[in-house]
Amino acid sequence: MTLTIPQNTDVTARKMHELYRFLHAHPELSMQESATADFIATRLDALGLETFRCGGTGVVGVLRNGAGPTIGFRADTDGLPIAEETGLAYASVARGTLADGTDVPAMHGCGHDTHMAVALTAAEHLVDNRADWAGTLVFIFQPGEETGAGARAMVEDGLWDRAPHPEIIYGQHVWPGLAGTIDISSGVAMAMADSWKVTVHGRQAHGSQPDQSIDPIVLGAHMVVRLQTVVAREVHPMKSAVVTVGTFHGGLKENIIPATAEFTINMRTFDLGVRTRVLDSVRRIIAAEAQASAAPEPTIEVLSTFPRCYNDPAATEKLIAALSHSLGEDAIFEVPPVMGSEDFGLLAEAIGVPSVYWMFGGYSQQSIDSVDSVAGNHSPHFAPDPEPALAAGLTAALTAILSKVGTTGGAA
Amino acid sequence: MTLTIPQNTDVTARKMHELYRFLHAHPELSMQESATADFIATRLDALGLETFRCGGTGVVGVLRNGAGPTIGFRADTDGLPIAEETGLAYASVARGTLADGTDVPAMHGCGHDTHMAVALTAAEHLVDNRADWAGTLVFIFQPGEETGAGARAMVEDGLWDRAPHPEIIYGQHVWPGLAGTIDISSGVAMAMADSWKVTVHGRQAHGSQPDQSIDPIVLGAHMVVRLQTVVAREVHPMKSAVVTVGTFHGGLKENIIPATAEFTINMRTFDLGVRTRVLDSVRRIIAAEAQASAAPEPTIEVLSTFPRCYNDPAATEKLIAALSHSLGEDAIFEVPPVMGSEDFGLLAEAIGVPSVYWMFGGYSQQSIDSVDSVAGNHSPHFAPDPEPALAAGLTAALTAILSKVGTTGGAA
Amino acid sequence: MTLTIPQNTDVTARKMHELYRFLHAHPELSMQESATADFIATRLDALGLETFRCGGTGVVGVLRNGAGPTIGFRADTDGLPIAEETGLAYASVARGTLADGTDVPAMHGCGHDTHMAVALTAAEHLVDNRADWAGTLVFIFQPGEETGAGARAMVEDGLWDRAPHPEIIYGQHVWPGLAGTIDISSGVAMAMADSWKVTVHGRQAHGSQPDQSIDPIVLGAHMVVRLQTVVAREVHPMKSAVVTVGTFHGGLKENIIPATAEFTINMRTFDLGVRTRVLDSVRRIIAAEAQASAAPEPTIEVLSTFPRCYNDPAATEKLIAALSHSLGEDAIFEVPPVMGSEDFGLLAEAIGVPSVYWMFGGYSQQSIDSVDSVAGNHSPHFAPDPEPALAAGLTAALTAILSKVGTTGGAA
Amino acid sequence: MTLTIPQNTDVTARKMHELYRFLHAHPELSMQESATADFIATRLDALGLETFRCGGTGVVGVLRNGAGPTIGFRADTDGLPIAEETGLAYASVARGTLADGTDVPAMHGCGHDTHMAVALTAAEHLVDNRADWAGTLVFIFQPGEETGAGARAMVEDGLWDRAPHPEIIYGQHVWPGLAGTIDISSGVAMAMADSWKVTVHGRQAHGSQPDQSIDPIVLGAHMVVRLQTVVAREVHPMKSAVVTVGTFHGGLKENIIPATAEFTINMRTFDLGVRTRVLDSVRRIIAAEAQASAAPEPTIEVLSTFPRCYNDPAATEKLIAALSHSLGEDAIFEVPPVMGSEDFGLLAEAIGVPSVYWMFGGYSQQSIDSVDSVAGNHSPHFAPDPEPALAAGLTAALTAILSKVGTTGGAA
Repeated sequence: MTLTIPQNTDVTARKMHELYRFLHAHPELSMQESATADFIATRLDALGLETFRCGGTGVVGVLRNGAGPTIGFRADTDGLPIAEETGLAYASVARGTLADGTDVPAMHGCGHDTHMAVALTAAEHLVDNRADWAGTLVFIFQPGEETGAGARAMVEDGLWDRAPHPEIIYGQHVWPGLAGTIDISSGVAMAMADSWKVTVHGRQAHGSQPDQSIDPIVLGAHMVVRLQTVVAREVHPMKSAVVTVGTFHGGLKENIIPATAEFTINMRTFDLGVRTRVLDSVRRIIAAEAQASAAPEPTIEVLSTFPRCYNDPAATEKLIAALSHSLGEDAIFEVPPVMGSEDFGLLAEAIGVPSVYWMFGGYSQQSIDSVDSVAGNHSPHFAPDPEPALAAGLTAALTAILSKVGTTGGAA
Repeated sequence: MTLTIPQNTDVTARKMHELYRFLHAHPELSMQESATADFIATRLDALGLETFRCGGTGVVGVLRNGAGPTIGFRADTDGLPIAEETGLAYASVARGTLADGTDVPAMHGCGHDTHMAVALTAAEHLVDNRADWAGTLVFIFQPGEETGAGARAMVEDGLWDRAPHPEIIYGQHVWPGLAGTIDISSGVAMAMADSWKVTVHGRQAHGSQPDQSIDPIVLGAHMVVRLQTVVAREVHPMKSAVVTVGTFHGGLKENIIPATAEFTINMRTFDLGVRTRVLDSVRRIIAAEAQASAAPEPTIEVLSTFPRCYNDPAATEKLIAALSHSLGEDAIFEVPPVMGSEDFGLLAEAIGVPSVYWMFGGYSQQSIDSVDSVAGNHSPHFAPDPEPALAAGLTAALTAILSKVGTTGGAA
Repeated sequence: MTLTIPQNTDVTARKMHELYRFLHAHPELSMQESATADFIATRLDALGLETFRCGGTGVVGVLRNGAGPTIGFRADTDGLPIAEETGLAYASVARGTLADGTDVPAMHGCGHDTHMAVALTAAEHLVDNRADWAGTLVFIFQPGEETGAGARAMVEDGLWDRAPHPEIIYGQHVWPGLAGTIDISSGVAMAMADSWKVTVHGRQAHGSQPDQSIDPIVLGAHMVVRLQTVVAREVHPMKSAVVTVGTFHGGLKENIIPATAEFTINMRTFDLGVRTRVLDSVRRIIAAEAQASAAPEPTIEVLSTFPRCYNDPAATEKLIAALSHSLGEDAIFEVPPVMGSEDFGLLAEAIGVPSVYWMFGGYSQQSIDSVDSVAGNHSPHFAPDPEPALAAGLTAALTAILSKVGTTGGAA
Repeated sequence: MTLTIPQNTDVTARKMHELYRFLHAHPELSMQESATADFIATRLDALGLETFRCGGTGVVGVLRNGAGPTIGFRADTDGLPIAEETGLAYASVARGTLADGTDVPAMHGCGHDTHMAVALTAAEHLVDNRADWAGTLVFIFQPGEETGAGARAMVEDGLWDRAPHPEIIYGQHVWPGLAGTIDISSGVAMAMADSWKVTVHGRQAHGSQPDQSIDPIVLGAHMVVRLQTVVAREVHPMKSAVVTVGTFHGGLKENIIPATAEFTINMRTFDLGVRTRVLDSVRRIIAAEAQASAAPEPTIEVLSTFPRCYNDPAATEKLIAALSHSLGEDAIFEVPPVMGSEDFGLLAEAIGVPSVYWMFGGYSQQSIDSVDSVAGNHSPHFAPDPEPALAAGLTAALTAILSKVGTTGGAA
């Protein structure tokens, strides 16, 4: 690529910081990012991109610039129900409403504000420098990443019927590493995650009459215990899986055996075969344990399904080369996959094209040195240092895009 | 006894019904029976009894009538946090406040209104007919029976430092049987009940990082499972015990392993040795299971302790004879003990005197025949038929008292 | 009755002791009591009874003596695979062969030798004193009590097609109480007992490959744990049940997950409804837990079924009166049922007639005082004192029989 | 290296096959390899090596050949208690005696005969061609690999006090892959394995008296169930561990609660930190569950401890280069570690030098094509094809040794 990537000191960087501060101060909860979507669409329109809304609060901007490859770039847009405690001048005082009607504080506690600021800035820079590249770019501003609902919503709302199909899609995420560094995995990058809510149906009785009851707490406890065998005995010891029962709720009074109990399960896997086995086994155990209690079949509600986040190895290798060139060889770390989850992978899977996803550091060396451990994603104290973080994020984004559409034909 | 027990048709009965309807319409929650206590004390004072307050909202009335035995009679006074659905003209619309500040509806859903109406009426009748008996009567209007707190509160507040010590204490409870019948057990009458709240302390972590956590839901589930062995393997097969985990609550989100989980246990036994073994074993299992998880010692909070309700066999035999005389031999049923609980027994235990407790039926034959099953205690539909229920309750109460202080010297 | 019951000092008693010592020295294992059966039949034939073999090694002797009631009396005949350690001059050195071919020592470790000696002596005494009674006696020498197989074998082999039907059947058992005393229950006397062998079918794999296995040890352990809920949560707290897993065997090597595991269950109940619930629930849990492991349905083999031992209350009341007369009022103890089991009850159940069963003490006061605790049934040291034990057993047997056929018409 | 590696057709190969057939026909069980040791020592002595016995049935042969590196090469020598079913002309009919005195058949069912034949042939070839290399070779013929006892026994018997310390130790194992191919891992190559026998101490009682017992079967079952949480919740999801309970034995009769139960655990890990956590957690759970039953501390006996088998990455890289040269690049497969275990690693660990271990294929393409799946190690049918297997094993052994001591200075 020959296009110069903007530096922190120039106008582009200052505008990016303004964008960031505004977005940080105005978080919206998953699948409710209406104002955010308006803000993004307005700016993309102003830049001259073709835009459309998709999946409710999703926004797509297509930037056509002559013959050349079509490339996708995704930024996620939602905040979290967290009360911000960063003490920043532009800290959020926004609130949102949960699905059950609860009014809660909102915060960009996972750094999606940095993703949007970088993507909008990259788009502007590429518009400003059309001469230096050729091809078509599809900017995907995806809502609802935190709940695993957004990518699916966009795909199901016809994303790929309306946008040109890219040959590859890139995405990135800020995390509490050193700004300027990139963590990237080849192959599987993040775990699949499936969450279910299980309602155990028993029969209510007074606490002194267990024989009149079907005790859903005893039954649920046996389910939780039995589920431990899935990871311990059913998954290949060299493969990874987690089955977490994150919540268990039943009963109102100590001397009443309740009619029902509810628990939620979060299942994480890297391998499709392992996922199938884990989900099948969990379902089988829940059904069988209910039978052991002569209880009705429990109700299972799927809460969310995060797909695999798989980095195409060939594309990853090329991207690592490009990033090593732009950020320095010592700044790029090839790492094993993480058990965390993302719905990014679904966008590319839907049309069978490769994708690559990486993490970029958010904290300056000074911040890292000043405390035992900097605040991580989802913490009320999560506050990346904008100067180095946004610059590095922008460099990584432009490097990835230009590695494909730069005038040198994609070579780093 | 020679004193005539009043009938439904006379003035005494009509006044008793008025008392009942007023009390039914004005329930107060356990240990908050202030207006009820005032109402009772006012009436006892008007009858000329020596009264004093005790245990917060408890009221004691002493009726002295010459030389003779001292006899105790207890009526409990508290309502329940239930929204009444009886449709009665005098149904409760009262509300109360739970310990945690929640505003809730209140209802005399366990029939303590009948107990008070009967006891007040018995006192008045005995005042009106002093010539027909001799001795001292101690009427104990006890608060907080539902929570097991009231009898203890009165004893600890010096009940027996202030009231003359009876040689026996009687108590009765309305239940959904045929009005006019009495169910009574010799020896153990009701179970001891101990309730605990257990807080399991774990270590919070993301759902994908079980190795960073001490999972309190998995730990709590193992506790619930392991507790089953107490009744199954540690209690003599021919003795009775129930260990019910009535509530289990932990976790807010499916992908977060929480820091704590809480459950409550209700333990019922008839035998002091069995109670000791059960409580010791439950405590031992909870501590050991925490150790198995390398978790801190769980916190155990005693929620309530219902003592044994033991009917002195000799006194019970005499009372059965007296009741057979006044209500008819066919109306008295000697029954095995029930797993339900009461704190009545504590009043007599505190001074080492015998006590006898019985159930009197609350429904007319017509009511019983009209539905598959009449509403039981603690149901929002619980509505004894006042005419036959109160009459029989009054007869039983007076029979018991007069069997001791009647002019014939206690013979039925 | 007017017949004199023989005393220890006379010829009858001496002959009874000889019988006892011979039988004690020649025990045979359950359902293999061939020599014992020959010995009994020879003696009954010599006494002039009509005899027949039934159920393999069972012997029946019918003694007809004019018009009058028909009464059954049962004595069991089998020994146990125990190496006797009593040090008695007539201690057993016999051996037997178990079903699996193992050669084992044999001992009358449960006192069935006393039962036979008493029954044979009673028969002889009644033959010798025909003038003092009238009716028909059916002496049933039943094999295989220890395995629960003998009563069933006799009934299925046509016992009641060949013997006259008694109006009542009596039976008794020696136990380590004071000789001269009787323990007897009205109604249910002993528990029903059902024993099963469960074979859990898994899939073998190397210990490092749990995902290739269906682990029958993990599955069996979950079954054992889950079975605890049957007694803890499914049986009425005031009813009795025991579910014991007495054996669990699986695996040959620590690093091989075996193909199967086996365990045996012993289930005891007093109440037919409770028995049905327990057996159904155990079967349900075993099937469901196998499903939870995706394992094949386990194989359940019934090892033995001991029926209820129920003492007809009216007949028991009459017998207690008779025994109080012959042994003294202070010698008769009415006791609650015991969790132990017997197949005696099946004999009467098969023809719908009442039966009564009692325990007679086996030890002298001197023996009881000389040690902390005398040896109980099934101990290698079990050694009742023959003089007082046999005398009291004979008195009890004759008292029971003569209470029905004595010339005074059955009154004690 | 310049030394020519012998081919199947020459004299060296024929002698190797004779050695192999003899050793195959004369297997001895672990730590009882006396005749095998004599056979090896005699041959090494004849070749002029300095030999000594070590660790009972271990043999060490030192071959000094001037200045140069010191290199170790290990072959294991023990057979297995398996009845050979290969049908080979030289199949074993040998027998051995287990630790408990049982007489069992013996078979070289894991291919240690090939290891010895190759090592002896390599020694002879290197003696015959002293001119082509320089340095010192330490041939370690190690007993007792199958039980994990042999390497420890040699080290504890002063192996490294008597033998010169090599700078690296090589070892190899035949497995059911294609002869001529090598499977090798860099870094961790095989799992650590720890096996324990746990004796659960309860209290015996009749099956009808659970309250008199401490039920070791119920307790042991809870231990097995609770142990599932170690892998499921305590090990990092991306690290590997297996906890297998391979055997569980308790009880003799369904109606007796036994005094004890025994189970064995096999624990496999790759990572020292994970091993520590797993072993600590298993020990903690066993102790805590016993406390939950008020049982005495269970007895834990260590059955075996297999160390980590770690291939030094730098040495492995060099060896792969050398093997690629001698066997062909396509014949060398770098593979992930396996959950199986070996005690080879202990030899080098004891003196802190690197080691490398690899698998060589044992079956010809023809054998592999002729069946669905060739017999694996520990199968009674395990029968590598000697011609290709021994040739490739010899080539690999000489390649490894000469890569260090060959005249070209160790370069492949």
